[in-house]
Amino acid sequence: MTGIFTPEFFDLDALIAAALREDIGAGDITTLSCVPEGALSRGLFRAKEDGVVCGLFILPRVFAALSPDVAVAPLVREGAEVKNNELIAEIEGPSRAVLTGERVALNLVQRLSGIATRTAAAARVVRGTRAKIADTRKTTPGLRALEKYAVRAGGGHNHRFGLDGGILIKDNHIKAAGGIARAVKSARAAAPHTLKIEVETETLPQVLEAIDAGADIIMLDNMGVEAMSEAVRLVAGRALTEASGNMGDRDLRKVAETGVDIISIGGLTHSAKALDISLKF
Amino acid sequence: MTGIFTPEFFDLDALIAAALREDIGAGDITTLSCVPEGALSRGLFRAKEDGVVCGLFILPRVFAALSPDVAVAPLVREGAEVKNNELIAEIEGPSRAVLTGERVALNLVQRLSGIATRTAAAARVVRGTRAKIADTRKTTPGLRALEKYAVRAGGGHNHRFGLDGGILIKDNHIKAAGGIARAVKSARAAAPHTLKIEVETETLPQVLEAIDAGADIIMLDNMGVEAMSEAVRLVAGRALTEASGNMGDRDLRKVAETGVDIISIGGLTHSAKALDISLKF
Amino acid sequence: MTGIFTPEFFDLDALIAAALREDIGAGDITTLSCVPEGALSRGLFRAKEDGVVCGLFILPRVFAALSPDVAVAPLVREGAEVKNNELIAEIEGPSRAVLTGERVALNLVQRLSGIATRTAAAARVVRGTRAKIADTRKTTPGLRALEKYAVRAGGGHNHRFGLDGGILIKDNHIKAAGGIARAVKSARAAAPHTLKIEVETETLPQVLEAIDAGADIIMLDNMGVEAMSEAVRLVAGRALTEASGNMGDRDLRKVAETGVDIISIGGLTHSAKALDISLKF
Amino acid sequence: MTGIFTPEFFDLDALIAAALREDIGAGDITTLSCVPEGALSRGLFRAKEDGVVCGLFILPRVFAALSPDVAVAPLVREGAEVKNNELIAEIEGPSRAVLTGERVALNLVQRLSGIATRTAAAARVVRGTRAKIADTRKTTPGLRALEKYAVRAGGGHNHRFGLDGGILIKDNHIKAAGGIARAVKSARAAAPHTLKIEVETETLPQVLEAIDAGADIIMLDNMGVEAMSEAVRLVAGRALTEASGNMGDRDLRKVAETGVDIISIGGLTHSAKALDISLKF
Amino acid sequence: MTGIFTPEFFDLDALIAAALREDIGAGDITTLSCVPEGALSRGLFRAKEDGVVCGLFILPRVFAALSPDVAVAPLVREGAEVKNNELIAEIEGPSRAVLTGERVALNLVQRLSGIATRTAAAARVVRGTRAKIADTRKTTPGLRALEKYAVRAGGGHNHRFGLDGGILIKDNHIKAAGGIARAVKSARAAAPHTLKIEVETETLPQVLEAIDAGADIIMLDNMGVEAMSEAVRLVAGRALTEASGNMGDRDLRKVAETGVDIISIGGLTHSAKALDISLKF
Amino acid sequence: MTGIFTPEFFDLDALIAAALREDIGAGDITTLSCVPEGALSRGLFRAKEDGVVCGLFILPRVFAALSPDVAVAPLVREGAEVKNNELIAEIEGPSRAVLTGERVALNLVQRLSGIATRTAAAARVVRGTRAKIADTRKTTPGLRALEKYAVRAGGGHNHRFGLDGGILIKDNHIKAAGGIARAVKSARAAAPHTLKIEVETETLPQVLEAIDAGADIIMLDNMGVEAMSEAVRLVAGRALTEASGNMGDRDLRKVAETGVDIISIGGLTHSAKALDISLKF
Repeated sequence: MTGIFTPEFFDLDALIAAALREDIGAGDITTLSCVPEGALSRGLFRAKEDGVVCGLFILPRVFAALSPDVAVAPLVREGAEVKNNELIAEIEGPSRAVLTGERVALNLVQRLSGIATRTAAAARVVRGTRAKIADTRKTTPGLRALEKYAVRAGGGHNHRFGLDGGILIKDNHIKAAGGIARAVKSARAAAPHTLKIEVETETLPQVLEAIDAGADIIMLDNMGVEAMSEAVRLVAGRALTEASGNMGDRDLRKVAETGVDIISIGGLTHSAKALDISLKF
Repeated sequence: MTGIFTPEFFDLDALIAAALREDIGAGDITTLSCVPEGALSRGLFRAKEDGVVCGLFILPRVFAALSPDVAVAPLVREGAEVKNNELIAEIEGPSRAVLTGERVALNLVQRLSGIATRTAAAARVVRGTRAKIADTRKTTPGLRALEKYAVRAGGGHNHRFGLDGGILIKDNHIKAAGGIARAVKSARAAAPHTLKIEVETETLPQVLEAIDAGADIIMLDNMGVEAMSEAVRLVAGRALTEASGNMGDRDLRKVAETGVDIISIGGLTHSAKALDISLKF
Repeated sequence: MTGIFTPEFFDLDALIAAALREDIGAGDITTLSCVPEGALSRGLFRAKEDGVVCGLFILPRVFAALSPDVAVAPLVREGAEVKNNELIAEIEGPSRAVLTGERVALNLVQRLSGIATRTAAAARVVRGTRAKIADTRKTTPGLRALEKYAVRAGGGHNHRFGLDGGILIKDNHIKAAGGIARAVKSARAAAPHTLKIEVETETLPQVLEAIDAGADIIMLDNMGVEAMSEAVRLVAGRALTEASGNMGDRDLRKVAETGVDIISIGGLTHSAKALDISLKF
Repeated sequence: MTGIFTPEFFDLDALIAAALREDIGAGDITTLSCVPEGALSRGLFRAKEDGVVCGLFILPRVFAALSPDVAVAPLVREGAEVKNNELIAEIEGPSRAVLTGERVALNLVQRLSGIATRTAAAARVVRGTRAKIADTRKTTPGLRALEKYAVRAGGGHNHRFGLDGGILIKDNHIKAAGGIARAVKSARAAAPHTLKIEVETETLPQVLEAIDAGADIIMLDNMGVEAMSEAVRLVAGRALTEASGNMGDRDLRKVAETGVDIISIGGLTHSAKALDISLKF
Repeated sequence: MTGIFTPEFFDLDALIAAALREDIGAGDITTLSCVPEGALSRGLFRAKEDGVVCGLFILPRVFAALSPDVAVAPLVREGAEVKNNELIAEIEGPSRAVLTGERVALNLVQRLSGIATRTAAAARVVRGTRAKIADTRKTTPGLRALEKYAVRAGGGHNHRFGLDGGILIKDNHIKAAGGIARAVKSARAAAPHTLKIEVETETLPQVLEAIDAGADIIMLDNMGVEAMSEAVRLVAGRALTEASGNMGDRDLRKVAETGVDIISIGGLTHSAKALDISLKF
Repeated sequence: MTGIFTPEFFDLDALIAAALREDIGAGDITTLSCVPEGALSRGLFRAKEDGVVCGLFILPRVFAALSPDVAVAPLVREGAEVKNNELIAEIEGPSRAVLTGERVALNLVQRLSGIATRTAAAARVVRGTRAKIADTRKTTPGLRALEKYAVRAGGGHNHRFGLDGGILIKDNHIKAAGGIARAVKSARAAAPHTLKIEVETETLPQVLEAIDAGADIIMLDNMGVEAMSEAVRLVAGRALTEASGNMGDRDLRKVAETGVDIISIGGLTHSAKALDISLKF
């Protein structure tokens, strides 16, 4: 999978170490007192519901932080659709490390798989239209790179990673700048020439104003399907169009059929249900 | 609210700083280029659906990290039940800081409020029984203290914070130790005398075995309601009982009426839907 | 040795790196200017007095932080009792790394061995009674996990690791809560059900009050031997008993013979004399 | 007190934060559940044995990390000699913060006071001679700046802070360099011209060799009193002289009367007994 | 000055703390031993050559890290052009803090002022043309936000902050992708839609190819002035044009007169001479 | 090369990681979208002007942080003088890692090589005199160890690393202490006996005063060549002499011929031009 913001380039091991420290605290006392030091185990990760698996590369890195002797072998490919009860990965190594790392590993993989699953469902709905399903900045603090990766794993598209990855002029910016035209002009003067300028609009006159100001992307915020279609027609390819605003509760097919280029959905990351996965010895 | 694991005693400011760094990256270019440095704004946080508000103390701390001049005034108390469109808090200060901090602030408060809302719903179902709704270790890496706090804010009870806050002997520990009796004995010998010993059981004979071994808490894992009732009867007050295993999908009232002391639910933290909250100038 | 709070699960390498940075600062100028880069050495760690050796696993990790080519071979097992002049470990590798790391390595191992030595002496005194020698939270900031490990290495028992590892209601808590009964009740309501409740008592009436309140552990603080015996008789197995208060200066045998379960001694960690160990080429 | 390596210039607050995190973990559950949020207390720190008080400035900083409302007023000056039962400081503020911070505060101040007490005793013995009592690098990892400060508070003198604060050529360096003369020459060529060169000697011929090589300081390691006197005579003011090697067990008066400039003692920091201090409400 | 990537939103205090730790190490021994604790001083920062002053806001923050009682008053505005011997700022406060912080403060301000000075000189040369002087990613590790800020303070323009702030397809990317068209297409498919696509070209046919592929910005790398003029003519406003490649050694006026939009110069940040500034009491 | 403050003993990997994080941010989007994951490349680092190469050991460590599969082979030795177009090193490995790490690697090596080049030029000028070319504390925040290493690589000598590596009494210290004699006396009493005392002088009477006070090193600050010669004559070997003050703009040969021991030059580190180095596939 072609990746942008790939987890390899962000501090995955630091995140894992922090998560283990948070969970283990002063020690996994149960395991240390009940499980002999030399004991070895073999276990299986298994999906307990249908979904898209995401984050398999996290498994070996969690356990490696606890012991160099744990081996994890994925049994499906990253991003695969699995059925309830399907095996996902196999683990083998010192029982203590496996037991101590289990929860942190599952907490991460279940969350990412949940996001990928929800994204895949949305992408399926709009298949055949020009619309791409995109994420937002409504991610979990500390996990944005992973969660945006999970959106891609589910077949979605990434919006800007953060506030430095694009100009997005919202209603409050417009008020503060004194209108769309002035806001776009200010941004063009001050921002690096490598960033596009997107303007949030709620009405068709605003759409036209943004186009006239030279916006590169027009966000159609909380518009009805008819207004959206009209907006797409007005823009006429002079800018990209992005549907936004409670898209998690909308009929995505209808939105997509308006001809928008992007549909961005906060719920992909802030309200996805974790995919249930078990580890059994 | 009496608090355990209170956020005051964990690194909330470090978490906020990391979240801001993740979101801001090299700079909030839109705000910096469109909003004049001296501009001031006043805004209102408003619930966009019914729920329990949690994490209000986070708001001033996010904005304080960006400017000493932002004032946030809560309009409801922490843990309050609010209705759709009800005002939650008021904010006033430099427009740049308000705009730049908005997303991080909302990402945190919406998540915690979502957890509190889901917990409150579960607690409402079991009201009048002896059962307490409890969380698990299935929390978001990096956010456990906040998420467990949100469970309390919603009227729930906290299970152990991490692996060092109690002995919880699960099936894999039992296998490795060579039976329940040996596992409990090992734990008692090696663990600090300040921790209770909980044993996971799936059958009534295991319940009896755990009681005989001197367990302080008996976890009834994935049992049907009738088996649970029988287990509670067998334990007869000699230990606490805890219902566990996909409790998020169970009829909690029926589980509670078996007489268990605790019902622990992973979904409180891993699959709660964020509460929708807006900030408008 | 069965371990709780084992150093493997806490950031030993980060501690070592910080200690090396503290000692080395801008560089070990003496070694860098006097010792050629390629020089190799072989050295021996030797006890310079009788005692219990603790922390041998630290040696290779200190030197590994400076060079991948240093080999350390222990010549006694962890926790062994050694005599003055007995060899402890052998080291071989680049002279520069050995010389630069020597002080940090010895500072750690001498301290832990001193604690293990003092603990072993105390444990020897109470042998044959039911009493276990336990540590306290009077440890060196930053070294608690290692120091509590050294107590175990010397044959002692660990009290709670920190404030989150048990409820310990002291006189000031009792005053603030309005009596023992109310304090215990508050704790039971709010604390995770996985933690035991210990109450500090100084008189026999307080012992009875704590038992009646349902305390799981009774601390007998600064009591004379006779009062202690009477307290143990009154408790009659309904709770664990723990002798505490200047135990470092008491006749431990007499305390143990009162029948208490635990004797906790702050001096094990805050006033143990370092065990003298030398490194000679 | 004139200070070198003063704690103001090292990360005291980071050390305190780490110590609190280590002790508090997920929360001071006892205090949070038994002590009401608004409760206020007043307490007194009192010496429980004779000694020198050191580290009073740490007290307010520990409690400030927990609450902005705790006030600490010292009742003796830093470095004061106190008698058993003498009051040291007064504290007033939120009961929760006082109770939660107590142990970390005392762990630090008791240790530093123990070091200052031991140093003061040694300094008293050599009063009237030219010898200064000095520390070594045998300090607790992470606490060197504080411990060396405590040595000064007790009237002692600081040796180099770390490996970068002076050239100290020991026997192993001499062997590696091929003799004293070559080692001194190498050091002079490569080291910054701002550092003195000290050479460790065990015999009078070595003393002479070091003087001939141009050493600035001669360490007299493990020498008897007579050899030391002779060495001082031979050096004849051409370099400083420093007595070293198990000085903790030596008759310091006799050592001092040999005329050495410095007596360095590892035991000041690695084996000082903590000074007993209590906090009572 | 409108700012992008402003230092307020990056960890300036952490950078200052690290710089102070690097410089102070175990203590400013000279100051601590020679300057009494209560001494106060007043000093003046003065330019020792002509240039543009940049980084005045750093001064109070460096000294605040050492003492809350140092006051710094700027005597010129940020970005001002000053003459040799002109006063820049006044400082007043505890002598120790002023002396200890002086070097770190000057090291930062002199560097930033040097960059602003060099940028201003370049901007002066191209005044009246459409060309903006821009920086590159050839900055000092750890100081990029400050150095890019200094470029703006000198009247320059910022190129992308880092690898995530724009697509810049260079010759090696083109080779790996199999041609300009394919590289642009891949980037458009995978990158967030908020980023523009820039293509590095060395010949006129490449310029045309990039335009055909839909590039938003055409980099003209190491072209002669005539080729550049021709390229600008060919592009005909369909994309931005950027002159690049050893621009530090070129006649900037001639380059600007080709009509390019941007001239990017690595030397602004990697080879600017520090501006000489003194602090005298 | 004999090294002091060698980069091996400071956190080079942490510096590299921070630099990569600063440059990469959320991802090298260009490379990730245009270059296939499995692609391999071979490239050559080449000097684009004459100079001294410094920092070759940094190259493999930068790329190792991105991929374990990049191999870097130096083609010249560290500290070598190279000519324009001479090859410096060869690199081979995954194209993505090579492209993503290129800028950080070059930013560091070009800067260090620039410093070494400038130092070598200065050392060449004074060859045959007793003077050593030395650096100052005017280094880049965060890079001091590397920059002082580069000075040595260019044949220069290191002054003290930081404020804790020597006593350097400047004019402001003298004023605060009440004269040279008192300042030297205070320093001798309080500072570790392992540090030399240097005094800054601007006139011959001050030189004599410093000698009388027992200074170990006399700094001759901003003196003309004749005054310097006279000062060296007056000192007559009783202390080291160091020429200082805008030495970057002076005729170093004439300064050296006065007989001073050290010539310290801030410009070696704060104003060296980066050496131009390219990486071509």
